[in-house]
Amino acid sequence: MLPDQQLLRIPGPTPIPPSVARAMSRPMIGHRDPETAELLEKIKPGLQAVFGTTQDVLILAGSGTAGLEAAVTNAVKPNEEALVIVTGAFGDRFYKICQAHDIKAHRIDVPWGEAVSPDQVKAHLNEHTDIKAVFMTYCETSTGVLNPIADIAKVVREHSDALTIVDGVSCVGGVETKMDEWGIDLIITGSQKAMMLPPGLTFLVASERAWKVMEANDRPRFYFDLRTYRNKLAQNSTPYTPALSLLFGLEQVLKLMKEERMEQVFERHRVMKEMTREAFKALNIPLLTTDKDASPTVTAVKPVDFSADDLRQVAKKEFGMSLAGGQQHLKGKIFRVGHMGYSSPADVLQYLGVIEIALRKVGKDIELGKGVQAAQKVYLGQ
Amino acid sequence: MLPDQQLLRIPGPTPIPPSVARAMSRPMIGHRDPETAELLEKIKPGLQAVFGTTQDVLILAGSGTAGLEAAVTNAVKPNEEALVIVTGAFGDRFYKICQAHDIKAHRIDVPWGEAVSPDQVKAHLNEHTDIKAVFMTYCETSTGVLNPIADIAKVVREHSDALTIVDGVSCVGGVETKMDEWGIDLIITGSQKAMMLPPGLTFLVASERAWKVMEANDRPRFYFDLRTYRNKLAQNSTPYTPALSLLFGLEQVLKLMKEERMEQVFERHRVMKEMTREAFKALNIPLLTTDKDASPTVTAVKPVDFSADDLRQVAKKEFGMSLAGGQQHLKGKIFRVGHMGYSSPADVLQYLGVIEIALRKVGKDIELGKGVQAAQKVYLGQ
Repeated sequence: MLPDQQLLRIPGPTPIPPSVARAMSRPMIGHRDPETAELLEKIKPGLQAVFGTTQDVLILAGSGTAGLEAAVTNAVKPNEEALVIVTGAFGDRFYKICQAHDIKAHRIDVPWGEAVSPDQVKAHLNEHTDIKAVFMTYCETSTGVLNPIADIAKVVREHSDALTIVDGVSCVGGVETKMDEWGIDLIITGSQKAMMLPPGLTFLVASERAWKVMEANDRPRFYFDLRTYRNKLAQNSTPYTPALSLLFGLEQVLKLMKEERMEQVFERHRVMKEMTREAFKALNIPLLTTDKDASPTVTAVKPVDFSADDLRQVAKKEFGMSLAGGQQHLKGKIFRVGHMGYSSPADVLQYLGVIEIALRKVGKDIELGKGVQAAQKVYLGQ
Repeated sequence: MLPDQQLLRIPGPTPIPPSVARAMSRPMIGHRDPETAELLEKIKPGLQAVFGTTQDVLILAGSGTAGLEAAVTNAVKPNEEALVIVTGAFGDRFYKICQAHDIKAHRIDVPWGEAVSPDQVKAHLNEHTDIKAVFMTYCETSTGVLNPIADIAKVVREHSDALTIVDGVSCVGGVETKMDEWGIDLIITGSQKAMMLPPGLTFLVASERAWKVMEANDRPRFYFDLRTYRNKLAQNSTPYTPALSLLFGLEQVLKLMKEERMEQVFERHRVMKEMTREAFKALNIPLLTTDKDASPTVTAVKPVDFSADDLRQVAKKEFGMSLAGGQQHLKGKIFRVGHMGYSSPADVLQYLGVIEIALRKVGKDIELGKGVQAAQKVYLGQ
């Protein structure tokens, strides 16, 4: 292994573009000085483009989970009912947060590796008419599933008065997101995935409907009170000290996205997904999800005749390549490859080449180069 | 193409390890302060290990060419005779420097892509008995040839009193170099190749024999007068302002080399060479050099049925990957891939995967994945 070479292929944190790392090394500025206000003003349109919204994009210093908790505590009062769609570990996290905040949470449990169907949601809403919010995950990081949030939002709107609340942490910025058009009421993401930044920021956007509910919500909250963030943002400010270097980096991330164009960003992620999936198919190694349910940002592979964790160890030890393992009941049973943010088809070719070698090293008898070839064909449109 | 992604695969400048980039961002220090003296003292043993010498390794702020000129002007007086072995563009540069300094330079011209044979040198030295120095290139960057400098040094020593002077710019640090054991009298390298640093430093090491000649040489010289560097280095100092950030980086480079061990550094370069060569052979694309003459640091490929420059353009435009072209009469006829310094087998798999796609894009009908497969087999020892 080459010292100091890390090939980070987990579904977040993801590699940081060099120009973003440079931007983040700018000297500190006063967080109440005009430079900070100008910065907050400047990044607004780029962030709105990422979410497909004309609403304010709120930025909190915190992890993605902070964003999820802020969504729960602002949108739902104690003892109100909510529905949580659980398609993996992060749907489960929404449920736990609801429980911690005395929300009467129902759950729809979908087998890990599958997406929820709008019909399941419809049936549940028709049965339970007091549900105030439906929580769901856009990309379920733990399984690589992309849930059909546009379809679900439609069902929720048609069959209830509930808010549609989406955890978009591991895909917003890499996958098309049309919050306004799709009727999403609250969407959250983090900085460390398709947003090409280190961890430390969470972004939240609320619809007008959601704001009405949140304004009227008298649940005790302080740091997570989104009303204060909205009020301060109107003055290009923040209620509490912002994570300034991450904002410097964010400004550069949005420049890069604009340069590439969002449509091309999404297309690049689609191509990386197809390359990855076709490679494992060519190698006869099962994928956890179907093509239809698969996320453009992360792919879960479910080996039947070798150990996922042994493979990850070989990749790490020999090539400095980090692949993710499974979570909860999938621990040891799958491995996951992140292909989002600052990642390219050339990076896909690299990890496939490495994984093929690692497969041989763990005793899996594959034809070397076959997965790479399948990926190259995808790139060439063949 | 992913904005801000550059895959630098030319034979120098080469990618910089992240820890080296960080080390280089240290604040400036006083170049006459004790910190600089400590730094110069600290890096001595690591540098000596790179060259295989117990002699002082002199460091000049300048490019590799500055080092070549310093070697010429210190080792040879005006009107003395010298022999220059020209196996490519950089042998030719030695010749031009000799001409600029009124040295009676003979040359042995070897077809580009081949190494010189010790017998050719022996024959020349037996015929011309007044030769004071024999100039040669270790790795000829323009062709990817590694000249057998140990054998040539032996012939020079046995058949003349000439000094053996070696341009090691594009390989020292990546290829075994035993200056003392092999009887090299003067060897030069640059910072931007296997030394994993940005351009800006040149390193020179002289044998005791060379020092005797250089001490006695009264040719006018100032910045390039190696005597002043040697005298100052004895006090852990430099005659003129050193390129401090590059020295900060060098300290870290030497740490990385020590961590990996020099034997493993050389083995990694050998593996990268074999992977690259076997890949092109599997794709039926001719290499410029034979296996015997090939350098572990750079491989030149000589297409017969597609344009090398078209291929380079596709790699650059679609993947941000820089491959080098040919120089002088090989311009447009070859392309060159650098695999030295901060480069790993995983990087080789990446550029091969990319080059295969680019080959298809320029109309070359190869079997996708076949080159990658051959490289994987080399890695696996199959």
